[in-house]
Amino acid sequence: MAEYMNMDTLRFQLEQVHQLEGLFQYPRYEEYDLDAINIFLDSVKDFSDQELYPVFREMDEKPAYYKDGKIIAHPAVGKAMRKTGELGVIAATFDHEDGGLQMPGMALLAAYFIMESANNHIPGYSGLTDGAAKLITTFGNQHLKETYVPNMLSGEWAGTMCLTEPQAGSSLSDITTTAYPTDEGYYKVKGQKIFISGGDHEHNENFIHLLLARIEGAPAGTRGISLFVTPKKRIAADGSLTSNDVITAGDFQKMGQRGYCTTHLVFGENDDCRAWLLGEPHQGLKYMFQMMNDARISVGRGGLSIASAAYHASLQYANERPQGRRVMDGGKKNPNQDPVLIIEHADVRRMLLLQKSIYEGSLSLLLLASKYHDLEQVTEGEEKKKNRLLLELLTPIAKTYPTEKGREAVDNGLQVLGGYGFCSDFILQQYYRDIRIMAIYEGTTGIQSLDLLGRKITMDNGKAVQLLAEEMKQTIEEVMAFDELKPYARQLGEKIQLSQKVLNYLLSFAGKGEYERFLSDATLFMDFFSTLVVGWLWLDMAVVAKRELVSGSTTFTTEFYESKIHTMKFFFKYELPRMEGLAPTLMSEEVLTILEERELIG
Amino acid sequence: MAEYMNMDTLRFQLEQVHQLEGLFQYPRYEEYDLDAINIFLDSVKDFSDQELYPVFREMDEKPAYYKDGKIIAHPAVGKAMRKTGELGVIAATFDHEDGGLQMPGMALLAAYFIMESANNHIPGYSGLTDGAAKLITTFGNQHLKETYVPNMLSGEWAGTMCLTEPQAGSSLSDITTTAYPTDEGYYKVKGQKIFISGGDHEHNENFIHLLLARIEGAPAGTRGISLFVTPKKRIAADGSLTSNDVITAGDFQKMGQRGYCTTHLVFGENDDCRAWLLGEPHQGLKYMFQMMNDARISVGRGGLSIASAAYHASLQYANERPQGRRVMDGGKKNPNQDPVLIIEHADVRRMLLLQKSIYEGSLSLLLLASKYHDLEQVTEGEEKKKNRLLLELLTPIAKTYPTEKGREAVDNGLQVLGGYGFCSDFILQQYYRDIRIMAIYEGTTGIQSLDLLGRKITMDNGKAVQLLAEEMKQTIEEVMAFDELKPYARQLGEKIQLSQKVLNYLLSFAGKGEYERFLSDATLFMDFFSTLVVGWLWLDMAVVAKRELVSGSTTFTTEFYESKIHTMKFFFKYELPRMEGLAPTLMSEEVLTILEERELIG
Repeated sequence: MAEYMNMDTLRFQLEQVHQLEGLFQYPRYEEYDLDAINIFLDSVKDFSDQELYPVFREMDEKPAYYKDGKIIAHPAVGKAMRKTGELGVIAATFDHEDGGLQMPGMALLAAYFIMESANNHIPGYSGLTDGAAKLITTFGNQHLKETYVPNMLSGEWAGTMCLTEPQAGSSLSDITTTAYPTDEGYYKVKGQKIFISGGDHEHNENFIHLLLARIEGAPAGTRGISLFVTPKKRIAADGSLTSNDVITAGDFQKMGQRGYCTTHLVFGENDDCRAWLLGEPHQGLKYMFQMMNDARISVGRGGLSIASAAYHASLQYANERPQGRRVMDGGKKNPNQDPVLIIEHADVRRMLLLQKSIYEGSLSLLLLASKYHDLEQVTEGEEKKKNRLLLELLTPIAKTYPTEKGREAVDNGLQVLGGYGFCSDFILQQYYRDIRIMAIYEGTTGIQSLDLLGRKITMDNGKAVQLLAEEMKQTIEEVMAFDELKPYARQLGEKIQLSQKVLNYLLSFAGKGEYERFLSDATLFMDFFSTLVVGWLWLDMAVVAKRELVSGSTTFTTEFYESKIHTMKFFFKYELPRMEGLAPTLMSEEVLTILEERELIG
Repeated sequence: MAEYMNMDTLRFQLEQVHQLEGLFQYPRYEEYDLDAINIFLDSVKDFSDQELYPVFREMDEKPAYYKDGKIIAHPAVGKAMRKTGELGVIAATFDHEDGGLQMPGMALLAAYFIMESANNHIPGYSGLTDGAAKLITTFGNQHLKETYVPNMLSGEWAGTMCLTEPQAGSSLSDITTTAYPTDEGYYKVKGQKIFISGGDHEHNENFIHLLLARIEGAPAGTRGISLFVTPKKRIAADGSLTSNDVITAGDFQKMGQRGYCTTHLVFGENDDCRAWLLGEPHQGLKYMFQMMNDARISVGRGGLSIASAAYHASLQYANERPQGRRVMDGGKKNPNQDPVLIIEHADVRRMLLLQKSIYEGSLSLLLLASKYHDLEQVTEGEEKKKNRLLLELLTPIAKTYPTEKGREAVDNGLQVLGGYGFCSDFILQQYYRDIRIMAIYEGTTGIQSLDLLGRKITMDNGKAVQLLAEEMKQTIEEVMAFDELKPYARQLGEKIQLSQKVLNYLLSFAGKGEYERFLSDATLFMDFFSTLVVGWLWLDMAVVAKRELVSGSTTFTTEFYESKIHTMKFFFKYELPRMEGLAPTLMSEEVLTILEERELIG
């Protein structure tokens, strides 16, 4: 089987870079050690090798589709749901009292990274089930928990999040699905939801929809939104499942991720769709943000995983395909020489290293976000606040960088194969199609960028950015022990200063109340700032690798550690300087994209 | 019908920016005037509206395929071949004596731009027929011309170029197809060719393959390659067509451009494939470069056309789709306000203007290259040399910029639609898939970049770059008449200086004979240098628009001209500064992608 990810790189990051072990000191995680986590990850790898990767192409070639009110999905979907239940993947991060395993989220992220690299069409089904169940355990009463959660954690029932409506798109303040109170303790809902991932198929007995709706008469805007548990089948008095008037009206056919259904659901067409309020009325969006934030990390992870799989596929091709010759000194080539493997060509090496620097940088970013999440759950006071702020700051970046730059990575992977990359016989074109949705799911890049600059940078008077800068400075200090790495610490320092300059410029508009101007280039700021963050993470990886090399560590080979340092240098040569191209744009005084009276686009 | 291109923008560029009329003073083009060209282009537009655009989606949904030795292609392919013959598209640029119309190539490029924006799966069939026939008229004897050219110009027979072989890929020095001389005046060829665009189908009676092969015993490398006319069916003594032992072995199934077949051909499997030498032995690659250079321009035009179509599709969506609200001063939104059209959001406007700046910049680049080609044919001495050098310099850029940046444009077009952009019901995903091949066809971006830096920049002691710099300086001088535009002239001047600095740095390696080092970042240099070129072209468009505005011209509306100046400003704010991010990478002293002893990728 083709390699689709690298377990050594994953372990290096989990154990040596992000020090997973440090979490086991906290009571919540005390039953774990590295061996236990590795056994878990190995079992997930076996499952991915045996059940996920082998059906990956087939799921693209025979996509999920809609027929006669039903979604026909690949049978592997049902099998995987139950297997992830059995392996403890779905229950991994839940509390013991809710039937969970209290595993650190970092380890679960690693598990999903393995599964999604093998087959990105399947893990969303269990991932959404996890998120939906967690909303119920966090905000639901005992009855809701007992009714739904056990069957969800086992993979018997699936969960979804139902936000988007046809007329509203990303603008949740405009949703119109309505919940009418009854005297029976439940509500009756009426409305349509589109783009519901994993919203229906025949391989799960029931679907538990976490649905945003307005209680009749609620205020306009996001303040009037509540959250409801709305099962596809409700439980009758005799304990059997009976239809709850949730109609599947279609499955959106897509360019990629074709095995992962994207449904159109109609609730209450026959006025018989019962829904149970989760938590308090009008607090729905706030609650949903728990799932949305987790889902943003998950989508970033999807981008990462596809980029990882594409990297390994193109690396394998580059190591096997002979073509052309290296340019000799003097500029000639010798046609009598045998062709070389294409991995020997500088431009192919550049494309491979670009992919590697993006995907491993993304992995580090996601593990770090996940670590802040884990720590936030087990720390208190200032420490807890710090972890929360850093997680909130990193969330839009962790969603965006792996999906935007991951797309560029996959694009380079396809290019390594030349004409074959475009042909259906090779897998790169599937990764190229699959990854394209990731910059759209769970809030487009534009929306994440507004969140980063408009909310996260400014929250708590800029406290989160300040905390992040302190983390970066600590890495710079650690680097000072190693002469080889000092020039890169200097470069990072310069880029931190440049970022401060750009931010001061942009924030001056916020200070003047000119918000549209402040945010008009938020997407470029995202590119700019996330490059800084990943540059920092690469320096951090290099310092860890250097330390291991100097100490004579044999956990991984010398070549392995040296390749991490080499890839850091690559990122600093080829990626970090892009910030210098973005800064003049971000600090330009010209205003060209804000609507004026006269129409200038056409 | 949806708009897929803008005739006003095309006319503005043809007539006002690139002054097509100036060509009519030369005897070769003297029978033309602007009216005649516009009538021709209008007829092409009608044809595109009526026959090309309506089948575009269907050709993707029902791709060309291989069955029982045949390629089944959409019937529109045959209809279009004959119609392009009738309209004079295929014969357009040929000499009168060869049955041609002696039309300027700029006008033909405009015609193909219209057709390809409507449907990029079809024009390749006639485009290759044009190129193949032109090889015969340029290098062939009277007999070859009479035998093949008339039926090709009418669209009855199709033409192809057969270069790539499975084991050689882009490395043409490694091709092994062999031609064995006979005593009958023809050769017998034996070999396999892959990735042959438009290589076979049932809608043309005959296919004339222009085939690279080695005459038995020829020297190794590119110096031993000859060019042969190899028909699918040869003409028997009685004038009828008879099989020439060219077997169609398959059709590559692809991610995009699925209506444009990509065949695998086997020549001489039964030792009965006759081929006629074109021109002299061992000169084949030199001859083929005529067609390859034209094909590079054509592929660039393909990228341009898809980017144009995607722009107009996303523009239409942005003008029709209400969603969300603008941020008000103070940073709030009013949920009681009606949603705005998404074209009012700054980030959507940014994505649209980015697309517009890329596609119109690409159009200008391609028309200019085409103009140098036209002028090269009708000028003499130094003037001719100047036009040739500028054409040669621009060719790899005109192939690469519209295909690489065009892909980014289409990507932004898809993003404008959010989730709908990823759905098969909307056309953006097809453009996204279709355009991906363009950076691979006719020499990948990596190969074009080696050509630009390794050959074109250095040829004639850098004469071509010097000529281009003079053209740019002339535009800067013209700008000085208009205060509004002066700051942009200054910025372009700074970027010309930066380019000189980067080039001096890179050329120092060539000077030392360190060619692998010199060329290792050629792909980045392509991005850097082509951004400068398109920046210049935008300034040129702005100065033309400004001049028309000042003179009170009513050829187009005030808004039209202002939008050109606005888009120039956009390019200078958002695109030109990227050069500042690329320069430090190009001038970095670190060597990270040239193969060392130890393996650092994995």
